[in-house]
Amino acid sequence: MVKLTFIVVSLILFFILVRSWLPLMNPDLSTFSQPNFWYNSKLTTSVSKTRPGSGSGSAHKSIDHSTQMPRHPLDPLTVNEIERVRTILSSYPPFTSSFPPISSLVLEEPEKDRVLGWKKGDPLPPRRASVIALVNGRSHVVTVDLGLGRVTSNVISPSSGYPILGIDDYYKALEVTLSYPELKKSVLARGVALADLACIAPSGGWYGPNEEGRRLIKVLCFSSQNTSNFYMRPIEGLVLTVDLDKGEVFRFSDTGRDIPIPRATNTDYRYAAQEKEPEMKPLNSISIEQPNGPSFSIEDGHVVKWANWEFHLKPDPRAGMVISRAKVQDSETGELRNVMYKGFASELFVPYMDVDECWYFKTYMDEGEFGLGALATPLVPLNDCPKYSYYMDGVFVGSDGKPYIQPNMICVFERYAGDISWRHTETLVPGFQVKEARRKVTLVARMAASVANYDYIFDWEFQTDGLISVKVGLSGMLMVKGTPYENVYKVQNQEEMSGPLVSENRIGVVHDHFVTFHLDMDVDGPNNSFAKVNLVKEETFPGESPRKSYLKVKRHIAETENDAKIKLKLYEPSEFHVINPSKLSRLGNPSGYKLVPGRTAASLLDAFDPPQIRSAFTNNQIWVTPYNRSEQWAGGLLTYQSKGDDTLAVWSERNRPIKNKDIVLWYTVGFHHIPCQEDFPIMPTVSASFDIKPVNFFELNPILRVAPAFDNDLPVCSAIK
Amino acid sequence: MVKLTFIVVSLILFFILVRSWLPLMNPDLSTFSQPNFWYNSKLTTSVSKTRPGSGSGSAHKSIDHSTQMPRHPLDPLTVNEIERVRTILSSYPPFTSSFPPISSLVLEEPEKDRVLGWKKGDPLPPRRASVIALVNGRSHVVTVDLGLGRVTSNVISPSSGYPILGIDDYYKALEVTLSYPELKKSVLARGVALADLACIAPSGGWYGPNEEGRRLIKVLCFSSQNTSNFYMRPIEGLVLTVDLDKGEVFRFSDTGRDIPIPRATNTDYRYAAQEKEPEMKPLNSISIEQPNGPSFSIEDGHVVKWANWEFHLKPDPRAGMVISRAKVQDSETGELRNVMYKGFASELFVPYMDVDECWYFKTYMDEGEFGLGALATPLVPLNDCPKYSYYMDGVFVGSDGKPYIQPNMICVFERYAGDISWRHTETLVPGFQVKEARRKVTLVARMAASVANYDYIFDWEFQTDGLISVKVGLSGMLMVKGTPYENVYKVQNQEEMSGPLVSENRIGVVHDHFVTFHLDMDVDGPNNSFAKVNLVKEETFPGESPRKSYLKVKRHIAETENDAKIKLKLYEPSEFHVINPSKLSRLGNPSGYKLVPGRTAASLLDAFDPPQIRSAFTNNQIWVTPYNRSEQWAGGLLTYQSKGDDTLAVWSERNRPIKNKDIVLWYTVGFHHIPCQEDFPIMPTVSASFDIKPVNFFELNPILRVAPAFDNDLPVCSAIK
Repeated sequence: MVKLTFIVVSLILFFILVRSWLPLMNPDLSTFSQPNFWYNSKLTTSVSKTRPGSGSGSAHKSIDHSTQMPRHPLDPLTVNEIERVRTILSSYPPFTSSFPPISSLVLEEPEKDRVLGWKKGDPLPPRRASVIALVNGRSHVVTVDLGLGRVTSNVISPSSGYPILGIDDYYKALEVTLSYPELKKSVLARGVALADLACIAPSGGWYGPNEEGRRLIKVLCFSSQNTSNFYMRPIEGLVLTVDLDKGEVFRFSDTGRDIPIPRATNTDYRYAAQEKEPEMKPLNSISIEQPNGPSFSIEDGHVVKWANWEFHLKPDPRAGMVISRAKVQDSETGELRNVMYKGFASELFVPYMDVDECWYFKTYMDEGEFGLGALATPLVPLNDCPKYSYYMDGVFVGSDGKPYIQPNMICVFERYAGDISWRHTETLVPGFQVKEARRKVTLVARMAASVANYDYIFDWEFQTDGLISVKVGLSGMLMVKGTPYENVYKVQNQEEMSGPLVSENRIGVVHDHFVTFHLDMDVDGPNNSFAKVNLVKEETFPGESPRKSYLKVKRHIAETENDAKIKLKLYEPSEFHVINPSKLSRLGNPSGYKLVPGRTAASLLDAFDPPQIRSAFTNNQIWVTPYNRSEQWAGGLLTYQSKGDDTLAVWSERNRPIKNKDIVLWYTVGFHHIPCQEDFPIMPTVSASFDIKPVNFFELNPILRVAPAFDNDLPVCSAIK
Repeated sequence: MVKLTFIVVSLILFFILVRSWLPLMNPDLSTFSQPNFWYNSKLTTSVSKTRPGSGSGSAHKSIDHSTQMPRHPLDPLTVNEIERVRTILSSYPPFTSSFPPISSLVLEEPEKDRVLGWKKGDPLPPRRASVIALVNGRSHVVTVDLGLGRVTSNVISPSSGYPILGIDDYYKALEVTLSYPELKKSVLARGVALADLACIAPSGGWYGPNEEGRRLIKVLCFSSQNTSNFYMRPIEGLVLTVDLDKGEVFRFSDTGRDIPIPRATNTDYRYAAQEKEPEMKPLNSISIEQPNGPSFSIEDGHVVKWANWEFHLKPDPRAGMVISRAKVQDSETGELRNVMYKGFASELFVPYMDVDECWYFKTYMDEGEFGLGALATPLVPLNDCPKYSYYMDGVFVGSDGKPYIQPNMICVFERYAGDISWRHTETLVPGFQVKEARRKVTLVARMAASVANYDYIFDWEFQTDGLISVKVGLSGMLMVKGTPYENVYKVQNQEEMSGPLVSENRIGVVHDHFVTFHLDMDVDGPNNSFAKVNLVKEETFPGESPRKSYLKVKRHIAETENDAKIKLKLYEPSEFHVINPSKLSRLGNPSGYKLVPGRTAASLLDAFDPPQIRSAFTNNQIWVTPYNRSEQWAGGLLTYQSKGDDTLAVWSERNRPIKNKDIVLWYTVGFHHIPCQEDFPIMPTVSASFDIKPVNFFELNPILRVAPAFDNDLPVCSAIK
């Protein structure tokens, strides 16, 4: 959940590796300053020596980012474009005297109608960059027009938050921490060698007036002695609150000196650090094999075409991964039909359920405070993604305004998991059997963000039957709390602990995860309505039927936003349709897609609790808003220390009309996480998903005519060794 | 949802093929009467010419059922045992004069302690068969001891239902239907040629005193003209209720002569019947490949061993598939530890939401009324199950008491779907990256039952992290209702229709599916407790914290059954743990497994509606009962026309103690199905699942030490063609 970058504090020397197995975790500025780094595209790893799928006739080509040109109106800014923006900004008056740290520099997407009107071969709409920078304490949102070669807009944000922090801010936090004598004293008193100190610098949220008007950051420290997994060795009770602009410690909490640092035993999860074999029979070689290569193509770097789907896919420093212009082929006419203009994870909210001095502020908004794309590390070939994956790089911008490459940050692959698309058998017909079954093959776009300890895995999965499944997986490490207890036997009242004991001296603090998705549905065009399709129990009247009751479908078209603020209820079931009232099927049913929630959780925090005010977008599971270009981020454009004045909940208070309008659907996937021993030292992935599913969109089952698999369709593979 | 067998009525000749594409669907008695059929084991199909995986050194061997011996106390009765039971019964007085139709003949599982005490190599506990037969209108439940060679018990069931119907009953229904002049008149008046008539004979439920004391069956008819999918061509309004014992029509409804038979256009789903190619780019060859064969073994025909799992797997004519004695290896000690004694789908409930004369009774209990195993047709290789699947046959008993083989009814396969078991990356460490990810490989046991129009796919998936995921997939055909409307334009009030128009003249009637699972958890031994682990909002007191609220974990151990009757609520969240209070971890946490519900639906019918009384096991999503050998079937042992006097809800009224007892967990997966055009003419699979997941069962993450995949671990495959 936590922080943007690592700071390991060695009071003796900054640049010396502390140990061979855990080098000094000094942020690698070369990423941002070495001009050649960012077009040295693909990583190889110790696990996979070669790039899979290359030369197989598939789309796996290395991109030369230094010569890359935008080809689609939604393509992210290229390296050249970013450099040009920087040049333009450098001669823009407020930036000339001293170039400010850049918090964000991304494509300002063209107006929606420009994008919708654009066809391949047309010239691109004007390319513009949106830049956020803090200048003299004020948040500037600047538009740079690349065609005009100048700044066309510079607005000082009126809302309460600050821009996402930059590398300079983390350095400042480090510097202040290092020069604070009480810290050193406390660390030594706890028996931690300074050379083993590892600290992270997460956000502190917003907790009322005395934290306002200053940019604050928290610093939490750990012992990295004998483990790569310092998260499991917290120095409990030690929290610095640093005022980033004044460059001083704003508050110093040092309350837990009686709490031992949990031991390193069993904490390391790296394969190389394991001494024992696992207690299970080894598995034979298994793989999703496609000897002719995958069936998808990626045109111009971002347009994915597969089976009956086409969509634009791009990395984004904040959202991580953005799906745009998702279109599916009509099963009867072959026409490409619009489904979704844009879909992405808009914000995360991760409140921990511990209110003590060192924990209360752990109510992170992982996307707006840190950036999912910025923290989306390269995927591990063969292990994060299967063999024939295509890997896409992110082209992002450092706080110096210069481009850098986030390599292999998205993978795209075809999945065959042994599942059944549809089936039916009739076997009681003598001499004749109907035995029809079809395999389910899907396409997945995946990214994974390591937000400090936690890992979020995002999958957008496309099915040939028109369904899109969006899955969030959680892995990585718990945020554990140190405790004097080695076991529960001496604990007077386990309910007083903020979570279960997951290992000796470690409480796995209970927490929630909420991931709010922005789903700009354009079902057969922008103007859609939201229909709540309720199932309502009806009683029969006497004599009508031997039955007493049945369910009836009652459709309610939402007129305004308030009609579409929905808390899910098992005993008041509904379907949630986004329909196009102007596009009727042969039968007269409106074309639609429905949102199908999966396993989820709701936020139970007090609505007036500061973190819940800031994350009020989790007050409902579903919202529908009229499309508004500025309403992209459910927690507000500037989330850091925001007071909740720019959230989905605030926008939606206007209760705007949403019937037959260009509307945006918002859905929140929630998780309650009560940790357990199995989550130590690293958590098996927990997933939840939702679907967007055609409902009267196709005239009939769109995969009726798909062929079954035959023996000679399948690869010929030989045994290993 | 419907019927056990097909009856196609040709008033001219019973045995002539009506058309080449749809032969007379006369129940194939040869299945039951030809002595050699049942050991002619494996099917080949037009799709897959050869049996995959054979000769790969794996467990894929053809079983010779004629020589098969039982090897495990829970092994189903073998062909020889069934024949011996029949011999014993033939000389048992009530059966001697005329051998009655056998409704059920299965292994009577030994007492649980006998099974728990048994080890491989020990002699088997006495083999017994449990037989249900209707003799002179009374339901006999007979135990035959194979060792003693005699009937040891014969009890007349005191509860209200009848045994599952047999082939003779369906013949009787056919005969009565054929000889009923009004039927012929009505069919001809509707313009259906008698040669095209296809009828099915589903159960009619129980609807009050005037249906009691007689065994009734419904007969519904369709036109099979120009399609294999006669379900889409209902003869609406025509329902015969047949008294099976009197051999006469009990009620004849003929109300819909003004409703046209929907046209055959687009109804056929068979690949061979498709004229167009699908409108999508074709996909390249893709497969889960295991050139060294799968990693699991199946010992003695039924004991599955894979990775860290071991369990007994068997086909069952009623439950379909039964998992027993599921044990997982401890990740630290290697010890095999008990997780679940027995898990299976115990009952289904499928109420349709139409109360008119021809629909009200469609409130099926698909398992107790028809039998999921009896209707589990052979799986289609490569399409129902991937390439390296192992297929297991069912050995079942016809109503003549003779054994027959249900070939390829379960498949077992390893799945790699490209998913991530766990991961974490740290990339800001210069010169050193932690990039750890592990693939998720699982083991699946699958069966599919075609209950007339509907197909149910059951997956039990085992993960190396100890999680078991149970998934129910729905495919096959809708039960559609004929309507005069070709489209919705002339419909005055769509809400008055019992579902949406899914195609011309067809209403997709709204319905629910509830699948109730019996989960006899034995976490580290039989005696367990059920803990409701609630997350409760707490408010802070003034000055305690900048936070106003947080969630606290409150554990409640259920004392009696009433404490564990649970309706799920999003805003009152809980975890549901089955714990062993006597088995504590190193830390002192009780060993446990938790039930993790997924997407589900609840029954909203009136509690006093006859179908809801019979299916009162759906009144809660979760129940916990003390183990009772006789409480296996949530809807009662004898479900046909039962009045609900032998259901889980009734047993549980006793409110028995369940703390630190051998307990059974019951969970219901629910679906509301509002049909749509995409469900016509065959439905893309819709799935829902739940998990059984370790919680403080292992001392730490049990897959911490598993190796990542390396390039040279993967198969070498060559291109097709």
